[in-house]
Amino acid sequence: MSEKKRRAGASAAGAASSSKKPRASAAASYAESLRSKLRPDASILATLRSLASASSSKSKAAEKSLADHDPSADPTASYIVVADQDTTSVTSRINRLVLAAARSILSGRGFSFAVPSRASSNQVYLPDLDRIVLLRRESARPFANVATARKATVTARVLSLVHAVLRRGIHVTKRDLFYTDVKLFGDQAQSDAVLDDVSCMLGCTRSSLHVVASEKGVVVGRLVFADDGDRIDCTRMGVGGKAIPPNIDRVSGIESDALFILLVEKDAAFMRLAEDRFYNRFPCIILTAKGQPDVATRLFLRRLKVELKLPVLALVDSDPYGLKILSVYMCGSKNMSYDSANLTTPDIKWLGVRPSDLDKYRVPQQCRLPMTDHDIKVGKELLEEDFVKQNEGWVKELEMMLRTKQKAEIQALSSFGFQYLTEVYLPLKLQQQDWI
Amino acid sequence: MSEKKRRAGASAAGAASSSKKPRASAAASYAESLRSKLRPDASILATLRSLASASSSKSKAAEKSLADHDPSADPTASYIVVADQDTTSVTSRINRLVLAAARSILSGRGFSFAVPSRASSNQVYLPDLDRIVLLRRESARPFANVATARKATVTARVLSLVHAVLRRGIHVTKRDLFYTDVKLFGDQAQSDAVLDDVSCMLGCTRSSLHVVASEKGVVVGRLVFADDGDRIDCTRMGVGGKAIPPNIDRVSGIESDALFILLVEKDAAFMRLAEDRFYNRFPCIILTAKGQPDVATRLFLRRLKVELKLPVLALVDSDPYGLKILSVYMCGSKNMSYDSANLTTPDIKWLGVRPSDLDKYRVPQQCRLPMTDHDIKVGKELLEEDFVKQNEGWVKELEMMLRTKQKAEIQALSSFGFQYLTEVYLPLKLQQQDWI
Repeated sequence: MSEKKRRAGASAAGAASSSKKPRASAAASYAESLRSKLRPDASILATLRSLASASSSKSKAAEKSLADHDPSADPTASYIVVADQDTTSVTSRINRLVLAAARSILSGRGFSFAVPSRASSNQVYLPDLDRIVLLRRESARPFANVATARKATVTARVLSLVHAVLRRGIHVTKRDLFYTDVKLFGDQAQSDAVLDDVSCMLGCTRSSLHVVASEKGVVVGRLVFADDGDRIDCTRMGVGGKAIPPNIDRVSGIESDALFILLVEKDAAFMRLAEDRFYNRFPCIILTAKGQPDVATRLFLRRLKVELKLPVLALVDSDPYGLKILSVYMCGSKNMSYDSANLTTPDIKWLGVRPSDLDKYRVPQQCRLPMTDHDIKVGKELLEEDFVKQNEGWVKELEMMLRTKQKAEIQALSSFGFQYLTEVYLPLKLQQQDWI
Repeated sequence: MSEKKRRAGASAAGAASSSKKPRASAAASYAESLRSKLRPDASILATLRSLASASSSKSKAAEKSLADHDPSADPTASYIVVADQDTTSVTSRINRLVLAAARSILSGRGFSFAVPSRASSNQVYLPDLDRIVLLRRESARPFANVATARKATVTARVLSLVHAVLRRGIHVTKRDLFYTDVKLFGDQAQSDAVLDDVSCMLGCTRSSLHVVASEKGVVVGRLVFADDGDRIDCTRMGVGGKAIPPNIDRVSGIESDALFILLVEKDAAFMRLAEDRFYNRFPCIILTAKGQPDVATRLFLRRLKVELKLPVLALVDSDPYGLKILSVYMCGSKNMSYDSANLTTPDIKWLGVRPSDLDKYRVPQQCRLPMTDHDIKVGKELLEEDFVKQNEGWVKELEMMLRTKQKAEIQALSSFGFQYLTEVYLPLKLQQQDWI
């Protein structure tokens, strides 16, 4: 944004808050005074560039540590990491399974599938990988057993359907899969559960099976990628942004000159950033899942992080729910644990809005909300979570939230002017490297 | 799609259902036999072209009838149609209101706002326009009255905030608006309600006030438009599609060689159509709001319909909820009635999945679901709605649904193969002009 335009913006913001009552004027004038603390953009950009290159070299180190823990490289590894596989690999894994079953039948022994347990007792959190993985406990699913005959049949059917989907080179939803044989599956919970079994049996992510979730995320900013062969330039996606594709394996050719990824909890803040073309002032990629993150957005973020090796800065509400959302991005959710290696982006920085920001930016008392009993309960539970405990700064912030019993939304910053977020708050945060 | 590719698809679909149990094979082979009924695409396209040109001339006639009812052309009109206005017009309307208040104050009479009532008793459905509009009943909101002083203040504040937003040329959400003066507004319901008042007072849509809703719709297909100046080619948006922009006034330069607009209820069907690039075989624009339509998607659909004059064909579940969704697109929802003229697209054709399709396409019994008591209640209520009663075909279909007490999702068609929807069902529907 030009200096002239910024000044015009500043005066308009002043005008917008000119009818503020005296009660709020002290906070508003303090908020305005922070604008003068801003160094020229070039100086902030220099900071961000060094951050981006540091993140890139750190990622390389992290990759190495992941390779050290690759269970396929270590036959004694006691856990299963479900990984992305290409179509050829998944197809040949299915072929091997089916051939083994056929041989077993021909030799008169019937057939049985070995299904890794997805029970929580078979899950473990690996601190050095910062991920939940599955242990190697398996159960047999023989066809020649009254208790398991049905489930073995369903498993065989799902394997055959996934094979057909892969061979056609298309993608389907769980619901589509269910409808191909309603009589056999009975209800969708059954085909869904067996699909998860199949995913673990094959050691492939669900997206490798071409069974996809619906999308709700959007992205704008300094990013170019191909969605099913179409080149998408996310600096030219207007205010609406580009819908994040449901099938991550059709995403290719990721390129970017961004210095960081800005992960935004909510649609409204995303719109503000997109409309103000924040990414042109501070080269970045802005994405949001509009609340609770869906699988497609988590896969997309991870892919960006892995390929571009950029730092990820998070802008969420200052409440326990904001942290919960970060935990889903960072650690995955329990019921997708076996897939966690492919869905999680462990190293996310908490940029804001943090509990300490409320006083630091003098957010007016009337824009803060009292925490409910449920909020406080969730907050206390979060204090016990590994992803919080590992980061002293996060513990302190969360303790402060629970002590003050106050929460605030990102939009509370609108009390200083609609564009305070993009013109003062975020630039100052970036300048001061104020993330933890 | 090439003939070769289509044949390959057909044989793969056959393979996918080759393990079908005998119980379903009759339905499946009938379903496959429908494929042979398909005429060459060129012939179907000729049908669609004549439909599109008919729709275009019909739209011109409809426009004329709308002009006949333009209340600004008719000073005796007894209702208010809230309309889209450009920034200059909204700003000058605010200026006029505020100047009138100032003059009133200077003359010693204090000030008062005249606020049109949004009560349901002040709403009326106009059959010839097929829209809900507001009658002219207004209430006075004087500042010098204990009962209304607060609300008059809030109204003045909202007017000033909207003015600031328009002057900056930005867009904000209702939540942003609320946070600019939490102490005054108290809770968001109050600022939201007054925003609706202001919208009626000014005779402008909420989107003209630059207060926007969050977006959840996506679009792909034969459409080019500019989102905030960025040229978007929706044939090159991959499978994910383009997120529909929250601020319709930033949409411009709409161009299309489509023959129709395909309105899809659900994300999963949208994904199937996008991945199969259905719009390349049958030039169309495909859009979905992923369930209950949001304001941004409704505005976008209406804009497409008005500018391109294309027929709109709807693909929804065969259940009362599918029809409810059509009613929101066609007639608006009661609480946005004053804005209905700008949000509704009255002339939508019900393509499918219709209750009569279930037998016509021999959808297997196990893919149909029994209607719940609540479904039946909603279905009976729909029979009383004007938008249903006007269309004899719709009444018959709905009566059949209530008689058979069966419903089905779009995805029930997956029982004949994952791509049956795009390869047989929809082409045959288009060929037979099977919409009502």
